[in-house]
Amino acid sequence: MLSKNKMKFIRSLELKKRRREEHAFVAEGGKTVRELLGRFHCRLLAGTPMFFSHTPAPEADEMVQVTFDELLKASLLCTPQEVLAVFDEPDWFLDEEAPRHNLCLALDGVQDPGNLGTIVRLADWFGIGHVYASPDTADVFNPKAVQATMGAIARVQVHYTPLDTLLDKLHDVPIYGTFLDGNNIYHEELSENGLIVMGNEGKGISRETEAKISRRLFVPNYPPGRATSESLNVAVATAVVCAEFRRRMP
Amino acid sequence: MLSKNKMKFIRSLELKKRRREEHAFVAEGGKTVRELLGRFHCRLLAGTPMFFSHTPAPEADEMVQVTFDELLKASLLCTPQEVLAVFDEPDWFLDEEAPRHNLCLALDGVQDPGNLGTIVRLADWFGIGHVYASPDTADVFNPKAVQATMGAIARVQVHYTPLDTLLDKLHDVPIYGTFLDGNNIYHEELSENGLIVMGNEGKGISRETEAKISRRLFVPNYPPGRATSESLNVAVATAVVCAEFRRRMP
Repeated sequence: MLSKNKMKFIRSLELKKRRREEHAFVAEGGKTVRELLGRFHCRLLAGTPMFFSHTPAPEADEMVQVTFDELLKASLLCTPQEVLAVFDEPDWFLDEEAPRHNLCLALDGVQDPGNLGTIVRLADWFGIGHVYASPDTADVFNPKAVQATMGAIARVQVHYTPLDTLLDKLHDVPIYGTFLDGNNIYHEELSENGLIVMGNEGKGISRETEAKISRRLFVPNYPPGRATSESLNVAVATAVVCAEFRRRMP
Repeated sequence: MLSKNKMKFIRSLELKKRRREEHAFVAEGGKTVRELLGRFHCRLLAGTPMFFSHTPAPEADEMVQVTFDELLKASLLCTPQEVLAVFDEPDWFLDEEAPRHNLCLALDGVQDPGNLGTIVRLADWFGIGHVYASPDTADVFNPKAVQATMGAIARVQVHYTPLDTLLDKLHDVPIYGTFLDGNNIYHEELSENGLIVMGNEGKGISRETEAKISRRLFVPNYPPGRATSESLNVAVATAVVCAEFRRRMP
C-alpha cells in the first residue's frame, strides 16, 4: 500500500521545480519502467501484482505492491498503467564535442512535452545519442514527456544548455535547420556529423539561432507548391529529416 | 457573452455520442478555426475581440464576442485559445476507388486522438486526400484530434469503414503496411497509388488486416540491427513512410 506521504511525494513531482529540488522524476507504464530499471537508480517502485510477476528481480530502494485504484490516485497521467516508479534524474556530462563526430539534435524552444518525448524516442531509433535543448524547451522529465519517450530517455542524453553558446563553439561544424524557404532536403548534400536544429511549434527557430544555421533545409510537400497545411508537426518534421540523413549513411 | 445553455452544449460535444447525435464538433484556436470557416458550416463562433479584429467577415449562424475567461470555461482543451467554434460535421462521400489512382492511408485502430490528428495533418502535407479508418480508430472530431490537425481536417477526408471489406475490394491494388520484420523501405519498389496501412500504438496492425497486406515495409533504425526503442510512434512512422513515397514521385 502507498502511504499518504508517498502519494503526496509522487504527485509533487508533477512540478518541474519539485523535480529539480528532489533530483527525481516519475515514470509510468511497464515498457518505460522496465527500460529505465537498472540504468537509473530507482527510489520507489509501485506496481500491481501483474507487473511484479512479469518483471524478473527489479531493483529499487523500496518496492510496493499496489492495486490499480491506488495507481489511479498516484498517477500523473490520464491513463495510469500497471506500474509507477520514482527514479533519480541522471547527471549527463555535457559533451559539446559530440556533433563534431556524430549527428545530434538541438531543440530551440519545443514546448509540448509529448512532442519532446516523441523526438527523444525517434532520436533513439535513428541512433542519435545527444539532444541539446534550449533552456525554454519543455522538461524531458515531465511525466508526459517521459511517457512519450517509451524508455528511450535511458539511452538518449538530453542536455539543457543555451544554444547560442553551443552553436558558437561549433561554428566549424555543419548546423542544419528546417525552414519553409529552405532548400529541398532531397537535393542537398548531408553530412555524417553535425547538428540538426528544430524550432518551437508555433514560432519555429528563433532569430538568434537562425543566424547561426549554415544549412537551411525544407521537407517538400506534395505536389510541390500546393497550398496545404502551413507546416508539419515538429516531431514529424524531425523524423523525416533524421530518416533522410540516415538513409544516405553508408 | 455565452449563455449557460450554450456553454453546456459546447461542453457536451466532448463526448463522441453527443457529437454523432448533434452531427457537430468543436474546433479551437485561430489557425484551425480560420481554416474551417467557409469550408464547413459554422453554427457558433465564440471569439475574443482580438480574434474578430484579425478575421475578415467570418460567416456563422451565431457570433459571440467573449472574454478569455469565458473561453477558459467553455474550452475542451487544457490550453484554450482566442476562439472556439461549433461546426457541422462534414458528410464525406465514401470513395472506395481513390486508392486505385492515388496514394491513400488506412488506420487500423489508432487510439490516441493526438496521433490521429497529427496523421491527418501530415497526410495533407504529403497530398494524401483520403484516410480510411477502422471503426475502432479514435474519432477525428475529438477536440484533441481536431486541434492536432491544425485545420487539415478541412481538406483531408477521413472515412470510418471496416477495413476488411475495403481491402477485399482493393485486392488488386498495392496494400502496404509497416512491420518490424518487413523489407527495408529504401530497397523496395513503391507505387504511385495504393493504400498504406498503419496500426494501433501498442498492438500494431491486426491479424485480419495483416493477412490482406501485400507489401511489408520496415523503416530501418540506425545503425542497422542495434538494440533500440522497439518502434517508432505511429504518426512518426507514417510521416517517414509517406515522405519516402513522395520523394520518389516524379
